[in-house]
Order: sequence, then structure tokens, then C-alpha cells
Amino acid sequence: MTRGIWITLEGGDGAGKTTQAALLEEWLREQGRAVVRTREPGGTEVGTLVRDIVLHHRGDIAPRAEALLYAADRAHHVATHVRPALERGDVVIQDRYLDSSVAYQGAGRVLDGAEIRALSLWATEGALPDVTVLLDLAPDLARGRLDADDKPFDRLEAEKSAFHERVRASFLGLAAAEPGRFLVVDASRPVEEIAAAIRERVGVALSPGENDVSAS
Amino acid sequence: MTRGIWITLEGGDGAGKTTQAALLEEWLREQGRAVVRTREPGGTEVGTLVRDIVLHHRGDIAPRAEALLYAADRAHHVATHVRPALERGDVVIQDRYLDSSVAYQGAGRVLDGAEIRALSLWATEGALPDVTVLLDLAPDLARGRLDADDKPFDRLEAEKSAFHERVRASFLGLAAAEPGRFLVVDASRPVEEIAAAIRERVGVALSPGENDVSAS
Repeated sequence: MTRGIWITLEGGDGAGKTTQAALLEEWLREQGRAVVRTREPGGTEVGTLVRDIVLHHRGDIAPRAEALLYAADRAHHVATHVRPALERGDVVIQDRYLDSSVAYQGAGRVLDGAEIRALSLWATEGALPDVTVLLDLAPDLARGRLDADDKPFDRLEAEKSAFHERVRASFLGLAAAEPGRFLVVDASRPVEEIAAAIRERVGVALSPGENDVSAS
Repeated sequence: MTRGIWITLEGGDGAGKTTQAALLEEWLREQGRAVVRTREPGGTEVGTLVRDIVLHHRGDIAPRAEALLYAADRAHHVATHVRPALERGDVVIQDRYLDSSVAYQGAGRVLDGAEIRALSLWATEGALPDVTVLLDLAPDLARGRLDADDKPFDRLEAEKSAFHERVRASFLGLAAAEPGRFLVVDASRPVEEIAAAIRERVGVALSPGENDVSAS
């Protein structure tokens, strides 16, 4: 009876989550592991409907209602998709989970990050990943990857930049609080070096002996 | 500056909530009060979309996801509809609120009623009505009103009946825990007697002097 392992990838847009998820999946399949790739929000049919409400009514939805809708998506996704995969013994690789909610809410300063975390943990009956990879990247580098345009920042861009700095600081704070779960990787390093660091950490989680030690 | 007052009606289906809401509205309008009649779930556009998800996927939605969707509807309804009306000084008459969620969840025994209450209070930043009218009725009497058919109960009907007894007991327990907020009325009494009892209690809430005392 092998229970599967659950790996989440976190970090700002442009940090390389999709690239690293694909490389990790490829490596795991070579090891003969069954892999489920998924994401939040919107990893299920119900989640897609919830996401549609949030996206179509953005700005018109009360902040707590929006947080509750995302928590509902999360509750359904974990109960119907993630847990069954882990019980089959699969490896789940997931793009964004509760750390994103906490980091982005905390940075937006509308709702308290600790309350968002508590809400997510109620939604999922306390489900936390075995490994969370934080791809850490300075926002100006991430922006350079997302947008090759080199024009100077206007005021809106400067505000966005300050927001993304707060998101980054929030992610780093979460990682520091749970060093056993998080692997923080400098996402400005070459893709293959990052992939090797992730493989090493996931390899430890996959090895039952090591896993017993780190699970305490 | 008169802040409005907020009245919720609770009880099983068939207890007469709609009838009493209409009579109370009529009386309040005669007093020259502006009245907003509303309901949960589904009192807003976003709430209607949320309700559609729950109704169309009933049974396929993880229980915590369903509870979170209802809480999202509640958060949005209170923030965008109830609070603005109260701030204008209107009287809000609402069909069902958090006591229904707690009573039905508690009776269904899937989730803990206290957790559902805490979730609702987080959703609404602690919003509680000034007056909650519980229309208390034995389930067999309520069923008689809803369904004139006199055939004997089959097993499913017996299960339903036991469930509705648990809902009723749960409502009565909630009322006993907050006697200052609740008015419990025997809903088997004549409609006009019930309406008079409700008017009396609401009249006290509308009178500023009395209100100061009861607001502590």
C-alpha cells in the first residue's frame, strides 16, 4: 500500500511553474509512477463554474464572497480529484494551492492571510501537500519574461510592481514558517538546474524510509 | 440617523413564513416604513448563479464545497443588499438566514452545526438579525399543509419525517440559546394571532428607547 505524494508549485506568474511541472511529470513517468497534473482554481467541472462566476463578476463580488467561492472550488477539487488520486498511489503535481490564496490576499490587504489559510484548511479538512516548490523570482525578472516590451513603468505598473513585491515577500514568509514542506528555488537559475533540485527533493519524498522521517 | 432593523423568519417549509412576511410588510408600510423583502439562498444575481451550481450538481458536490457556496451567497447578499438597506434605515424582512443553515446541516449530520455557524459569521463579519421569528410547527402538521394527500408514510417518508423532527429540535435549541434575538411562535395558531405576536415584538425593536436596552 503506497499512498501517493502531493506536490504543489507556487510563485508569481512567469516564474516557470508550468515548465517545471512538465519536466517533473516526465521524470516521474520515467520512474514508472502514475502522475496527475492539476491546478487551482478550476481543476474540476464545479470549479470551472465557480471560476466563471468570479471572473465574470470581478469587482462586483464582495471580498469575502470571492474568498468563499475559491474555498468552495478548493474543497471540491481536493475531495473529488486530489484525495482519490493520492489514495490510488498516484503522484499529484498541482499548479497553485492555498499558499497562493494566502500570499495574494495578504498582499492585497483586503482580508487577513491567516483567516484565508484557516478557511482553506476547513475546506479541505486540513489537507497540506507533501512538498511545495516555491519558484522565487524578483517581479521585474518575471515581468521581463512575461512581456518583452521594454517601455518605462507608468504609475499603474509601479503599483503592480509594489503589489508583486508584497506577494513575493508573503510567499517567502510562508516558506520560512514551514521549512519541512517548502523547497525554495531561485527561479532565475537555468531550467535544468532547477529541475534537478526539484527532482532531488521529490526523490526524498518518494523514498519510504526518508519519508517516514520527514512526515513527523 | 435611524439605522434600520433586520428581521429574519425561520422554520420548516409549510410553517407560514411567506404569509407572515407579507402581513408584516403590509403593517410596516402602513407605519410609513420602507421595507425590503429578501431571501436566502439566491437574493442577489451572484447568489442565483451560486444556487444554480448547487441545485444542478446536487449530490456531486463535496459537502464542504456546498456549505462554502452557500456561505459565499450569504456573504455577497449581506454585503451588497442587507447592509445597504439597513444603513438607509429600511426594515429588512428576510426568509431564512444562518439559523436555517445550522438547523438543516445539524439535522443532516454531515457537518458540524457550530462550524457552519462560524463560517456564516465569518462570511458576514458577524451580522446577526435584530429579531428572528421561529415559526414552530410539528412536521406532520407542516406536511399536511404542503400535501393534502393522506396516504400512509412509506419508509422514505418516515425517514423524511425523522429528519424534519431533527430540524425542528435544532431550531428550538438555537432559539433557547439566544432568547433575546428569537421570538418562538406556535405556528399552528390562527394566522392573525401569529401576525399580532410578531407585530408586538417588531414594535419593540422599532421603538428606539427599548432598542437601546435590548442592543447590549
